[in-house]
Amino acid sequence: MSLLVTGSIGIDTVKTPGDVRENCLGGAAVYFSMAASFFSPVRFVGVIGSDCPFDLAEIFAGRNVDLTGLELRPQSKTFRWTGSYHENMDDRTTEKVELNVLAEAPPKVPEEFKDSEFVFLANTAPALQHELLGQVKKPVFVAVDTMNLWIQEYPDDLIALLKKIDCLIINEDEVRMLAGQHNLIRAAQKILDMGPGVVIAKKGESGSIMCNADGHIFVLPAFPAADVIDPTGAGDSFAGGLMGYLSQSGRTDFETLKTAVAYGTVVASFTIADFSLDGLTSTDRANIDKRLQELRNITQF
Amino acid sequence: MSLLVTGSIGIDTVKTPGDVRENCLGGAAVYFSMAASFFSPVRFVGVIGSDCPFDLAEIFAGRNVDLTGLELRPQSKTFRWTGSYHENMDDRTTEKVELNVLAEAPPKVPEEFKDSEFVFLANTAPALQHELLGQVKKPVFVAVDTMNLWIQEYPDDLIALLKKIDCLIINEDEVRMLAGQHNLIRAAQKILDMGPGVVIAKKGESGSIMCNADGHIFVLPAFPAADVIDPTGAGDSFAGGLMGYLSQSGRTDFETLKTAVAYGTVVASFTIADFSLDGLTSTDRANIDKRLQELRNITQF
Repeated sequence: MSLLVTGSIGIDTVKTPGDVRENCLGGAAVYFSMAASFFSPVRFVGVIGSDCPFDLAEIFAGRNVDLTGLELRPQSKTFRWTGSYHENMDDRTTEKVELNVLAEAPPKVPEEFKDSEFVFLANTAPALQHELLGQVKKPVFVAVDTMNLWIQEYPDDLIALLKKIDCLIINEDEVRMLAGQHNLIRAAQKILDMGPGVVIAKKGESGSIMCNADGHIFVLPAFPAADVIDPTGAGDSFAGGLMGYLSQSGRTDFETLKTAVAYGTVVASFTIADFSLDGLTSTDRANIDKRLQELRNITQF
Repeated sequence: MSLLVTGSIGIDTVKTPGDVRENCLGGAAVYFSMAASFFSPVRFVGVIGSDCPFDLAEIFAGRNVDLTGLELRPQSKTFRWTGSYHENMDDRTTEKVELNVLAEAPPKVPEEFKDSEFVFLANTAPALQHELLGQVKKPVFVAVDTMNLWIQEYPDDLIALLKKIDCLIINEDEVRMLAGQHNLIRAAQKILDMGPGVVIAKKGESGSIMCNADGHIFVLPAFPAADVIDPTGAGDSFAGGLMGYLSQSGRTDFETLKTAVAYGTVVASFTIADFSLDGLTSTDRANIDKRLQELRNITQF
């Protein structure tokens, strides 16, 4: 089925305890699309400025990512992010953010994308997510990411958005913050009461937990990694693998969602194994399926 | 097969964000034995002083725990511990420790326990664990717990002990500390090189990870709990369920160890659902088996 993503394209500078990479390609929509494209065609909506050094058509060549929704604003600058990872490689400090185009009006969803069935609204102001979602005619399954800033600064916008979506995919700390409740199961239940039928909490190297409104729970560890090179984009790759698999299968029942979470987990494990998109671009669907089976083997008893 | 445990009997005062319980029964050997007794007969070795208000024979009545190794020292006082849990119920502050009998000579392993096949040495000074282990003739599988204090203060004693044991079961932070390596997989590999064939890292509400010397890995989330009342004893109950199942099955291959970790996880989930031993004593093997199946359902895809 059709899968639409709206989100950022970023010029990232990433510092890890062992290395620094300046001005590499990043952004939620980019990681999401690369991850999802292993499973399903992707419709891409995002904005860059004239300073963007990356040719996205070349980056996504042969990957079934439709860039009709990529807008170039000649008078604007591309979103830039600089972050440094702590020794544990799970926590990071954002050193510098230049919102640039992200502080302007959101992009338009192209006419030919308006019939999209699966939609992922990557992290941005909830009012903008709402506006973007309003441009899609009859979505079947809408998943959303958000962050602490919006939970704290625009809770009403976010709560209004939650009533219109099917799935919230956020970090565990954001689940706790949004619900005002430390216990993750209770916090997820509280968010389910706000509207979405599914809540997925990302727990970094400890995996993820998914709860739905019918009381079903699914917990899955991360794929164990002896080498974590750059965790940037792990969360967006997780969402990409998950939504890509849902779009491929055309189903959203809980059993399908479980497999989708497992695929998201596996795809993210490739992302963190190298800088920028290199971990993703150097693998393929066969390797992903092989690692899914490995994940099954090391978690099942 | 036969299962021996050596460890503390404690008089605990536990403070949680919602409640306080003073002078309740605790201690590693107590939690371990109660947990293991659902699976296997347990041989108990530990010391109390004359102030101990608990009748362990009554506590363990009908539970197949042999208290021949319980030593009463009339001139001594029982180990006491006071701790308070943080809002997240995973971290805690030890407010007060009175070692009392634990600072004295260790107990003797009774003659009739010296042929024990499975042995768990609960947390105490590694030199004492070494001495206790020396009293067991030909153990088949020895598992050990330790803590940051011994890793920092008596590393040589601990490293000598590691060469003689089969399995180390410790918290993830202790794995990192002992190995001097943040990445948990690499840290576990480093500890495997020190001697034990199996390393199990306990990750609190994020479950556990097990690595063996053949390169096998098993990861399992904790059983999701909407109500965490008192986490005290969760780690010892985990070890008790694990070792109890191994002793019952009489096997230590990796597939059996995986199921043992799952049983440990399930038994611990009963422990944290109430204060002291109440969560354990109010369940039974049928409920444990039922929850094991639930754990399978919510983790498998």
